[in-house]
Amino acid sequence: MEYDFLSVTLNPSLDREVIIDNFEVGNMYRIENPSNSKMEPGGKGINVSIMLSNLQMKSIVTGFLGGHIGRVIQSKLSAYENITMNFVYSEEESRENIEIIDPLKEVMTLINSKGPFINDEDYDHFLRRYKNSLSLVEHVVVSGSVPPGLKTDVYSDLMFEAKKRGKTTYMESIGPCFEKAILNNCPTVVRPDFRRKAEIFGKTLESIDDFIDASKKIIENGARLVVMSYQIFGDVITTNEGVWLFNPEERIEKSHLFGAGDAFMSGIIYYIINYNFNYFEAAKFGMASAISKTDYIEKKIGTLEDIKRSLSRFSIERLE
Amino acid sequence: MEYDFLSVTLNPSLDREVIIDNFEVGNMYRIENPSNSKMEPGGKGINVSIMLSNLQMKSIVTGFLGGHIGRVIQSKLSAYENITMNFVYSEEESRENIEIIDPLKEVMTLINSKGPFINDEDYDHFLRRYKNSLSLVEHVVVSGSVPPGLKTDVYSDLMFEAKKRGKTTYMESIGPCFEKAILNNCPTVVRPDFRRKAEIFGKTLESIDDFIDASKKIIENGARLVVMSYQIFGDVITTNEGVWLFNPEERIEKSHLFGAGDAFMSGIIYYIINYNFNYFEAAKFGMASAISKTDYIEKKIGTLEDIKRSLSRFSIERLE
Repeated sequence: MEYDFLSVTLNPSLDREVIIDNFEVGNMYRIENPSNSKMEPGGKGINVSIMLSNLQMKSIVTGFLGGHIGRVIQSKLSAYENITMNFVYSEEESRENIEIIDPLKEVMTLINSKGPFINDEDYDHFLRRYKNSLSLVEHVVVSGSVPPGLKTDVYSDLMFEAKKRGKTTYMESIGPCFEKAILNNCPTVVRPDFRRKAEIFGKTLESIDDFIDASKKIIENGARLVVMSYQIFGDVITTNEGVWLFNPEERIEKSHLFGAGDAFMSGIIYYIINYNFNYFEAAKFGMASAISKTDYIEKKIGTLEDIKRSLSRFSIERLE
Repeated sequence: MEYDFLSVTLNPSLDREVIIDNFEVGNMYRIENPSNSKMEPGGKGINVSIMLSNLQMKSIVTGFLGGHIGRVIQSKLSAYENITMNFVYSEEESRENIEIIDPLKEVMTLINSKGPFINDEDYDHFLRRYKNSLSLVEHVVVSGSVPPGLKTDVYSDLMFEAKKRGKTTYMESIGPCFEKAILNNCPTVVRPDFRRKAEIFGKTLESIDDFIDASKKIIENGARLVVMSYQIFGDVITTNEGVWLFNPEERIEKSHLFGAGDAFMSGIIYYIINYNFNYFEAAKFGMASAISKTDYIEKKIGTLEDIKRSLSRFSIERLE
């Protein structure tokens, strides 16, 4: 195939990453060093495409862009030679997200906006492009939030179209659209986005057993691999063969976690496309990619060598 | 004249105004209401042009714009019919500023970037445009920060050119460029930007006497009106005729102070251009504009009627 995968980001953003030591509410800061204030195209699907572009993987990105900010996102994305854009233009402006990273206190403060309203005509247009793009790839990742105006079965419908055509599907998200997709057209690889709250199927996950139960429920729905981040640094990994806990063997700076989830998903996709469909091994490669990412404060993945080296940087404990 | 005034903003920005209740470091916020996340052209001179455009005053805006963000600023500014743009394009990107306003806790958190590097060629180009624009106006406001690459006498030089041609000049800024202009080519109206720190001529101003002494020093250098914000809500006003303290007679929400300084300067310019050169009366009109602004959380000035009504919303105490 000409492209390795298709990535869907319904709600792309322009990410403003600001690094401020000892960030406190009520102050006035002046960023003196330009490298402490970056502007990057974002949204979880786009992040995966960017990270894998750096590993020479070719992808098509689709979703909605709008207005001035949409044009900035497009122009910045066009700098990546392995990314082909196939966006639909919405009437309203694309969103900007703000990420304030404090490396000293090791805290991140995130301010995300909702995104532009998508009308039915734009969605129909998108759906035609999505179906056309599906014929060009074997792997589809759908990640991130859903902009206003779209129905809650949007993710379920996208999965239905992909699965009907026999594609391998990957999804990272949270909320009603995500849950509907899991229940009706479950993706192959699922990573719930627990950054705000570990809550799924109407239940807040607290104990490790809660995480295991929820993971197994997703596997029962047809997923082959479920990755759930547990207690910040650890990850509960579930396949048809069992449940494991992956734990880094080193102290990781909290402020470096930004983008680690996207790196995890990127590693899984890279492994499955380039090596094979062993989901447990793919999860290990994903964890290694996430840990390799945490060597940087920015949203940046390491080289293939860095990732392979990071395979020994975490412990694996069998839970079930 | 075809234009009422020229406003110089060497370092324009795209301002992201985000309104978040109970904003705390380390959280992840999702802005649900788009009116709580705005994107506006900014920089102090541009703010004055926008506020006065709403009062039907025609201005030329000049300074440097660059890159994607520069184009967004330009496109947003083009929506104001009373603003004519005469920018020079720099190689590096214009900056974005982030303003997080918490109306419940009444706190503002400001994150400003430094701005693009301006090379000599761009500056020469700007200077030619500035001199040409001067022939089209009688009033010149130079406000805000100076981007990297420019010499510390840039503001002094701009004032020299304006004064040589007999223009009435207004300046709001802080730092070495600002102080050099005051000492060598003092503007007619001066408002130091004390938002970060009340510090000028190597001295931190603490007591009311410190403010009076510094104000009188600026008057001695040739200013006709000095406005210094004192203890958040009050203002020390100094002319050749005396020193006064202006104090609002009502409780003002701190979170509504954002842009009040620019409204103050706008009111002064409006008064002088439309009524007369009575600097004390102009300061009263400026104070009324600033108070009228604080009725809004956004960077928005009231109508002329609102401003006139606000003339009775503060007390005036003669200090000297």
